[in-house]
Amino acid sequence: MAMTAVDGSGDAGSVRLLVTGEDRPGIVSTVSGVLQRAGANIVSLDQYSSDPEGGRFFQRTVFHLADFAAVRPDLEREFGEELGGRLGLDWSLRPAAQRKRVAVFASKTDHCLLELLWRHRRGELPADIAMVVSNHPDLAEAVRTFGVPYFHVPVDPADRSVAERRHLEMLVGNVDLVVLARYMQIITGGFLEEVGVPVINIHHSFLPAFLGAAPYARAKERGVKLIGATAHYVTEDLDEGPIIEQDVVRVTHADTAADLQRRGADVERQVLARAVEWHCEDRVMRDGNSTVVFR
Amino acid sequence: MAMTAVDGSGDAGSVRLLVTGEDRPGIVSTVSGVLQRAGANIVSLDQYSSDPEGGRFFQRTVFHLADFAAVRPDLEREFGEELGGRLGLDWSLRPAAQRKRVAVFASKTDHCLLELLWRHRRGELPADIAMVVSNHPDLAEAVRTFGVPYFHVPVDPADRSVAERRHLEMLVGNVDLVVLARYMQIITGGFLEEVGVPVINIHHSFLPAFLGAAPYARAKERGVKLIGATAHYVTEDLDEGPIIEQDVVRVTHADTAADLQRRGADVERQVLARAVEWHCEDRVMRDGNSTVVFR
Amino acid sequence: MAMTAVDGSGDAGSVRLLVTGEDRPGIVSTVSGVLQRAGANIVSLDQYSSDPEGGRFFQRTVFHLADFAAVRPDLEREFGEELGGRLGLDWSLRPAAQRKRVAVFASKTDHCLLELLWRHRRGELPADIAMVVSNHPDLAEAVRTFGVPYFHVPVDPADRSVAERRHLEMLVGNVDLVVLARYMQIITGGFLEEVGVPVINIHHSFLPAFLGAAPYARAKERGVKLIGATAHYVTEDLDEGPIIEQDVVRVTHADTAADLQRRGADVERQVLARAVEWHCEDRVMRDGNSTVVFR
Amino acid sequence: MAMTAVDGSGDAGSVRLLVTGEDRPGIVSTVSGVLQRAGANIVSLDQYSSDPEGGRFFQRTVFHLADFAAVRPDLEREFGEELGGRLGLDWSLRPAAQRKRVAVFASKTDHCLLELLWRHRRGELPADIAMVVSNHPDLAEAVRTFGVPYFHVPVDPADRSVAERRHLEMLVGNVDLVVLARYMQIITGGFLEEVGVPVINIHHSFLPAFLGAAPYARAKERGVKLIGATAHYVTEDLDEGPIIEQDVVRVTHADTAADLQRRGADVERQVLARAVEWHCEDRVMRDGNSTVVFR
Repeated sequence: MAMTAVDGSGDAGSVRLLVTGEDRPGIVSTVSGVLQRAGANIVSLDQYSSDPEGGRFFQRTVFHLADFAAVRPDLEREFGEELGGRLGLDWSLRPAAQRKRVAVFASKTDHCLLELLWRHRRGELPADIAMVVSNHPDLAEAVRTFGVPYFHVPVDPADRSVAERRHLEMLVGNVDLVVLARYMQIITGGFLEEVGVPVINIHHSFLPAFLGAAPYARAKERGVKLIGATAHYVTEDLDEGPIIEQDVVRVTHADTAADLQRRGADVERQVLARAVEWHCEDRVMRDGNSTVVFR
Repeated sequence: MAMTAVDGSGDAGSVRLLVTGEDRPGIVSTVSGVLQRAGANIVSLDQYSSDPEGGRFFQRTVFHLADFAAVRPDLEREFGEELGGRLGLDWSLRPAAQRKRVAVFASKTDHCLLELLWRHRRGELPADIAMVVSNHPDLAEAVRTFGVPYFHVPVDPADRSVAERRHLEMLVGNVDLVVLARYMQIITGGFLEEVGVPVINIHHSFLPAFLGAAPYARAKERGVKLIGATAHYVTEDLDEGPIIEQDVVRVTHADTAADLQRRGADVERQVLARAVEWHCEDRVMRDGNSTVVFR
Repeated sequence: MAMTAVDGSGDAGSVRLLVTGEDRPGIVSTVSGVLQRAGANIVSLDQYSSDPEGGRFFQRTVFHLADFAAVRPDLEREFGEELGGRLGLDWSLRPAAQRKRVAVFASKTDHCLLELLWRHRRGELPADIAMVVSNHPDLAEAVRTFGVPYFHVPVDPADRSVAERRHLEMLVGNVDLVVLARYMQIITGGFLEEVGVPVINIHHSFLPAFLGAAPYARAKERGVKLIGATAHYVTEDLDEGPIIEQDVVRVTHADTAADLQRRGADVERQVLARAVEWHCEDRVMRDGNSTVVFR
Repeated sequence: MAMTAVDGSGDAGSVRLLVTGEDRPGIVSTVSGVLQRAGANIVSLDQYSSDPEGGRFFQRTVFHLADFAAVRPDLEREFGEELGGRLGLDWSLRPAAQRKRVAVFASKTDHCLLELLWRHRRGELPADIAMVVSNHPDLAEAVRTFGVPYFHVPVDPADRSVAERRHLEMLVGNVDLVVLARYMQIITGGFLEEVGVPVINIHHSFLPAFLGAAPYARAKERGVKLIGATAHYVTEDLDEGPIIEQDVVRVTHADTAADLQRRGADVERQVLARAVEWHCEDRVMRDGNSTVVFR
């Protein structure tokens, strides 16, 4: 089954364990010991420490345990005692079969949105797209042919609070991730706090070059020879959140600002799709204002 | 002969004509008409106009004319009348056999310098490296094994004027291009004006990201997923001159700032070598603070 | 208007002149002289000669001539006498406004087909997609939401002649280009001859590696570290036609053959879209079993 | 110290444990348990299984143990019992401080050889270059300026046995790796068997395209749009050994076969340098005719 190839999400016994905290000796043996006693088979294990001496520690373990559902309470108790209690680490168990529910926000530009919808339909996105939200009605028909609900929520720039309240009503409890697929509206700190789930944005430049508006026009003006795109978690500081993925494409003097925008669009959709896929496979862990990406 | 393959510089009849100015009808037919009457064969012709209506025009024509040396005065007169006079354009003739003389400036870091020396020795750089100038003695031996003179000119940060005077004495009249191959000293506007030839610098970041000092440390701090290098003409505004070439390489969270520096070094030397090669083949034309690169 | 940015196809006065033949002196001055006398403005001019001495010559000139429709007969007569007659070259005039009509063939796999349809809808493909033809009914609904006719023509492997006849009835006189967007059926020499227009195929490997069937499985078996895709003109020799464009993506030991296929799909659609775009902009000229691509 | 940044080779307590064999439950907990009891800190751990059910298992663990030299015998006994005996796996301990000794073979072409020598001098290659061996005297001077011995061993194509005997006398017991840096001579199965250490070759094409001789000429003839290079372990089957690393660079119709060779040279040296670096850091494990590369 195609799903299995991507992420094991069709397999009820495939589980990811994420561990993070202060690096100290014995973490691997603790994790592997608990899993060994439970009869689990470790399929893959990635770890990273920012510094072998007192650095920050990040670990992603994928294991297989046929009767995970049955023994989950025991496992959680044991990890709680060993990892949380004894070693003082943060940890969480993420069954691959429990796909993340995603809301995609867009405005009038469709390329990033359609890329996600297509990949989802092809079974390449290990997530469920629960809804598309837009401040414009333009993309409703294109979205609905994919069988995904489209909610048009106009935004009053003078008072965003009405739109934000509607957004929160729709999102809270219903989704695990919000993706801004070229959504051209300000996201407030209040919204981020209340929505309570990660928000991923695609910025149409190679950050930190060309922060802010109209990056392609400014790239043309500066005469750069490559243009790029950046997918990042949204924080209160516009375009300053932790970067998940970036890529670039070569351009020349002969490319107009409009050409840069078209070529950039191809990079944007690839970069955003990769970032969303990796996030949904629990491959991305935040490290301050950076990310650790286990690929 | 390898030289011919690269740039025709071994061929006395290979000449480049550069034309720039305000776009207007009839430029191509004027250029080709003059060359046709002179019995020249057009080998390649590239042109770019920033706007078909009243834009800036750039043209690079490579032609072959066996007795160029003999007819050069006639050609210059005719281009002067037709292009300079009638059409109001700037133009110049550059025989490929007249290789540019280059001074390379370096400090203690050798990777960019050695890349240029080595390509030069292999016959891949259509230029003559006339001298290497450094504010440190460290690289003298490595440079001299290439048979290139090495001049150690210490720089007093409190008073750069002594060093600058020595630089200018060595350079003016002797070289057609100065290349800063990781030369860690400030270049003053006064120097640029007096030296009278283009100066190319390699900046160790993907400009305009990480302008200024310590770009790799700041790239690590910002958590970027690609690092880059930029070769540009030097102007009075530090790191703001016209970009000639850029490239990037992928990095991960596991790369330390030192790793970024090592990986970046590989990009720096490739980018600088390409920029110098293109400049020496007269492929780069300035367009305000951008460049037109005919590759 | 976006169309103009892409290819000038919205502009009735934008015309491309393609010239090919044996290189000889005077071609540029002849072309520019004719255009000059007609009052045309040369917007861009690219040329390539396989050898300055007696090589094959290729030229693409884009010019602007407001009343092209009116003076076309005169221009054609003059080019016929000068280029065709006197210089013995092949030439053709291609008004940008005369968009190519394209038939896309697909089977069950949709990624390449959808990429073309979507770019077409965004106005990024300077062509009209006249029809989609498939040997399976599966993609009918997806295609029709784009407002493009879908023709299901089953193919009997034992006797392809019935299907071929139907294909030719639909295509001849109606389209200027056939694109095989992962069409998993043999194309016969007889079909190629009778259809009378170029046929572009996307092969799912970096040709000439992995000619033939199941390239991803064989790439996995061989343990390559990059996989690629190749867009080429179809000739009687399977996978051996002139290459238009290629690209690759990095893979690792951890990627399964199914992963290679998914990652390869992203490369396939980008490569095919670029090849079709360039072909439709008359940027691709055949040179024996290679291509000259003026980008 | 720079060395530490690269690979920890300046640190006597940094050790790599490589484990390979049939995948089975409990390997991670066994490894981490042994290391935990010895007081070692796991710095990084990578593993890969070709199939969670009965596949082949590969693991690279880097740990830090200050008094490794003292406890090495105990550790080896315990790993021998647990990994070798109980679990039936192959394993080995590789102290980072024990740098690999490398012999580089070259002919007349210097770019790959010089790249390795430079990187070595810059402290970027975690290995010692013990000697350079060539069938030509041409590169002797260039090599000796790096302080590396150069041995000229002429090869009689009619009888390679004399040269092979001399090679084996110089190599056996003295080096841990042989690198063929564009060494244009046949390597026999007999030599591979007797030399007893891995041999890495750089092939100047993107294998499996253009196996055998003159790949750039054939790439030009085929009209490819990218050219590449491949570093692989040498086996008896020419150009068929396990691939370690590959990369490509874009070319155009205007590039001659000589241009392809020049541009290819840049890819060759980068690809070979990466392959040698990874091998010397024990990041490459063979998996049949493929490699597992933990980066």
